[in-house]
Amino acid sequence: MQILKKRILEDGVVIGDNILKVDNFLNHQIDVELLDEIGKEFHKRFGNVGLTKILTVEASGISVACATAREYKIPVLFAKKGNVSTQNEGNYSSKSFSFTKNEEYTMNVSKKYIGPQDTILIIDDFLANGLAIDALLEIVEQSGAKLAGIGIVIEKDFQAGGRKLREKGYHLESLARIASMGKNGIIFA
Amino acid sequence: MQILKKRILEDGVVIGDNILKVDNFLNHQIDVELLDEIGKEFHKRFGNVGLTKILTVEASGISVACATAREYKIPVLFAKKGNVSTQNEGNYSSKSFSFTKNEEYTMNVSKKYIGPQDTILIIDDFLANGLAIDALLEIVEQSGAKLAGIGIVIEKDFQAGGRKLREKGYHLESLARIASMGKNGIIFA
Repeated sequence: MQILKKRILEDGVVIGDNILKVDNFLNHQIDVELLDEIGKEFHKRFGNVGLTKILTVEASGISVACATAREYKIPVLFAKKGNVSTQNEGNYSSKSFSFTKNEEYTMNVSKKYIGPQDTILIIDDFLANGLAIDALLEIVEQSGAKLAGIGIVIEKDFQAGGRKLREKGYHLESLARIASMGKNGIIFA
Repeated sequence: MQILKKRILEDGVVIGDNILKVDNFLNHQIDVELLDEIGKEFHKRFGNVGLTKILTVEASGISVACATAREYKIPVLFAKKGNVSTQNEGNYSSKSFSFTKNEEYTMNVSKKYIGPQDTILIIDDFLANGLAIDALLEIVEQSGAKLAGIGIVIEKDFQAGGRKLREKGYHLESLARIASMGKNGIIFA
């Protein structure tokens, strides 16, 4: 997706050879016109596959999920993060780990809003090691819903998450795949 | 806003005489078509007052802020929640308190994205005691930006937040104002 790659090159800030900050247009300040284009692009790539809901996780996945859901005219469902004590019987729960905060957390989704009748598209802003996506996949599995695919705005190709998901046969679409970044700038895959 | 009030009556869940859960369409599952109507309604109520940015706070304010920002074709900026240690020189910060989690937290907004040249509309999903809005107002004040108004989806009129803000002269627009709730159902103001 050219306008996204252009924006990453213009406004992304690389810290070390691992961290890409896109606070200018995606993760803190949000460019809603770019968001619309992202939603349209996901709709184009996944097409009409009988989706009933878009699943994401708070907080920075929400805006992208909403833009995509507008194209499909279906609801968004966002997993809530909590500590281990927030698990309860009314929720599907899975554990994940935040490298930013260096702590384990749970993702929780109410059983009321996802079930075997659903066909889900998972959407998130970043894919690196894939732990957040693994947790969302576990929730879809617990619910008995069908998974149509996984849509990612920015994938770090040099971390293992995307490769593992493709090897398992998931339909994964990443709008910008970064092969490497660091002193020589950002190189797309 | 009639369709919002209707939806609250149909799908809102009252717990005790204080808690209203709107997980079905706003705070966990999100109805993106209703969201579009909410964005249009805020645009109608605040009009063209030279807004440059919409300010909200993660997580459930983000979807509403994005829907409103689309109408104005301006960016969203969402405050990030952290513990007290996440304050740093690059951010405007203010303290707030979560009654849900029973803990103090900080809101942080990068100084890069808000300043005296901005005219801000604050948007949030709920207004009860007003502590979250107070923290956002403090950030706007620190930044030197002009404040155009505060837009709220659901206000609990029986808690003090809205009254205090109106007494101070802020332009506050709440799309649904709840006078009371409990055994006799939800009564709008």
